[in-house]
Amino acid sequence: MSDEFDPTSLVCPLPARDDTQILLGHGSGGKLTAELIQRLFLPAWDNPLVAALEDQAVLAPASFGEGLHAGGRLALTTDAYVVRPLFFPGGNIGTLAVHGTINDLAVGGAIPRYLAAAFILEEGLPMDTLRAIVASMAEACRAAQVVLAAGDTKVVDRGKGDGLYVVTTGLGYVPPGRNLSVRHARPGDWVLVSGPIGDHGMAILAAREELPLETPLVSDTAPLCGLVEAMLGRGGQVRWMRDPTRGGLSSALNELASASRVGVQLEEEAIPIRPEVHAACELLGLDPLYVACEGRLVAVVAPQDGPAVLEAMRRHPLAAHAARIGTIVADHPGTVVLRTRIGGQRVVPMLAGQQLPRIC
Amino acid sequence: MSDEFDPTSLVCPLPARDDTQILLGHGSGGKLTAELIQRLFLPAWDNPLVAALEDQAVLAPASFGEGLHAGGRLALTTDAYVVRPLFFPGGNIGTLAVHGTINDLAVGGAIPRYLAAAFILEEGLPMDTLRAIVASMAEACRAAQVVLAAGDTKVVDRGKGDGLYVVTTGLGYVPPGRNLSVRHARPGDWVLVSGPIGDHGMAILAAREELPLETPLVSDTAPLCGLVEAMLGRGGQVRWMRDPTRGGLSSALNELASASRVGVQLEEEAIPIRPEVHAACELLGLDPLYVACEGRLVAVVAPQDGPAVLEAMRRHPLAAHAARIGTIVADHPGTVVLRTRIGGQRVVPMLAGQQLPRIC
Repeated sequence: MSDEFDPTSLVCPLPARDDTQILLGHGSGGKLTAELIQRLFLPAWDNPLVAALEDQAVLAPASFGEGLHAGGRLALTTDAYVVRPLFFPGGNIGTLAVHGTINDLAVGGAIPRYLAAAFILEEGLPMDTLRAIVASMAEACRAAQVVLAAGDTKVVDRGKGDGLYVVTTGLGYVPPGRNLSVRHARPGDWVLVSGPIGDHGMAILAAREELPLETPLVSDTAPLCGLVEAMLGRGGQVRWMRDPTRGGLSSALNELASASRVGVQLEEEAIPIRPEVHAACELLGLDPLYVACEGRLVAVVAPQDGPAVLEAMRRHPLAAHAARIGTIVADHPGTVVLRTRIGGQRVVPMLAGQQLPRIC
Repeated sequence: MSDEFDPTSLVCPLPARDDTQILLGHGSGGKLTAELIQRLFLPAWDNPLVAALEDQAVLAPASFGEGLHAGGRLALTTDAYVVRPLFFPGGNIGTLAVHGTINDLAVGGAIPRYLAAAFILEEGLPMDTLRAIVASMAEACRAAQVVLAAGDTKVVDRGKGDGLYVVTTGLGYVPPGRNLSVRHARPGDWVLVSGPIGDHGMAILAAREELPLETPLVSDTAPLCGLVEAMLGRGGQVRWMRDPTRGGLSSALNELASASRVGVQLEEEAIPIRPEVHAACELLGLDPLYVACEGRLVAVVAPQDGPAVLEAMRRHPLAAHAARIGTIVADHPGTVVLRTRIGGQRVVPMLAGQQLPRIC
């Protein structure tokens, strides 16, 4: 019939446009947003949860772990990532975000299961940059057996947002019986670190400042969930773990000393630091104890289990250079003290201001 | 003994500093970060989960709902908020973030339980601004009976970050038997909206552009979880719900038409729009069908349950002006068509570019 209404005849063709970069319209919730999701995010995050395109991902309790009905619990963590530059030796802001959130779950004894990622994009961000970051995030999730379950994208004006910020939220499963806490350290416990400290922070700084270094510095960014399972699988008493990111080893141990009301006695000689990291720190007047790692953990372990846990760590590829770096003591509660190479003692306080901004 | 080591003697006093605004050091992970958490966030978010100061919040399955062991599921959603201005009539970026995330859970049939919030702060942000936003977020959480379980703060350089961005992630409980989906619309279903559309988007625009309006425009930002429970409590077949935020009513219904492979027939006359919102839209040449709401929902309901669900909505304070605005049809699948006041038909396509940036 000639008067039949054909709605498709009324749809205007889209104007020609630049699809090599992010436009404000990509954040509008309209057609451009839908295209960005369909063409860029969904192919990378190939799973039914995001493909459902609902405003929320629905998760079956059984997908967390069998023990959820028998004393198991859930763990939730969130982190914003604003690191510059976006790409650095060893990773990029996306892999860092995935690893960082996985690690915050893992050091609490949780097995990471699901991730949500929110992107704040600057107008003009090259589409290829976003594509590369999203692809590496998907790969990092697969490697750690974590499912990217939910996402969001907003676009801010040119000149704001520094290219890209990403916020990742992690949801994990804490099997029954695990109970790590920053309040659990006891005098006599061993303090262990899984590898050389400060690699990430100095790699970022070197990339940002284009430092002329003989040996290139590479970030240690890595997912620690496998290492944690290897340590906890020993059955030994791990009291507490932390990934020493912002504020470095010093901040993590100061928080422990304060919360557990114990002292921490560190041996400078025992703390693994790569010579090139040490050299870069000296060059810039930085203390490696305050420089961030993104693929290391510090753990406090009951003394009788110290040797076995340390041994388990050293058998894991991410902790071949694990070391005992100190002891929990009853003296000077709330304070971290370092015995220096020449035998002196110095307090290692909480970082007062900032040593190195925007490293994560 | 005179040679006893007193570590506190070695701690240097902090330099005097400005504590009226955000400094880069507040994002360093050191003492300033700890102070910001202790003095600003913890007093507002007064609960044991954040007070534990662990890197992750541990949640008991029983805290979600009794049915989690009997067919209940979890729902996860994340959203970034970059709205300008930070404060607007009816709310601020913080209340918007809390309500928006709660609503994304609620429209999926989930009861919101926990929230995580990540803040990206611009150096120089007045501390009082942050305090006011955090306090209103805490109040919004309390009002919706949601627990703020995890948080993070980063600081970016002056000139970046636009004052403050916030990313909220929500975790909720989907009781057994609830199964709403964007794929579930069937011809004959009623299309309902809970109240006047476009209030939020036009309130933001009026505040941003300082429009000279006789009647001030106020955002509709509100938590929809109570309204959703009232609707689902009827036992009727609600097929799908969505809060029409970015892209407005049009985008929500276009997504539905496309995913369910149905047509949507809207009646212009039936769509509630405040006269002042209509006037502001005319003034600026905007189509209210594309303007965001942050406290409204659109629902598709089986025809036999339409009257009862509409009645239940109208008894709720947030939906006194709920209306049936259209019908799901078998014709023109994938397309939303509006019958205008003068009897014409026009296609309401997905928003192609952007009508109104950064309204959430």
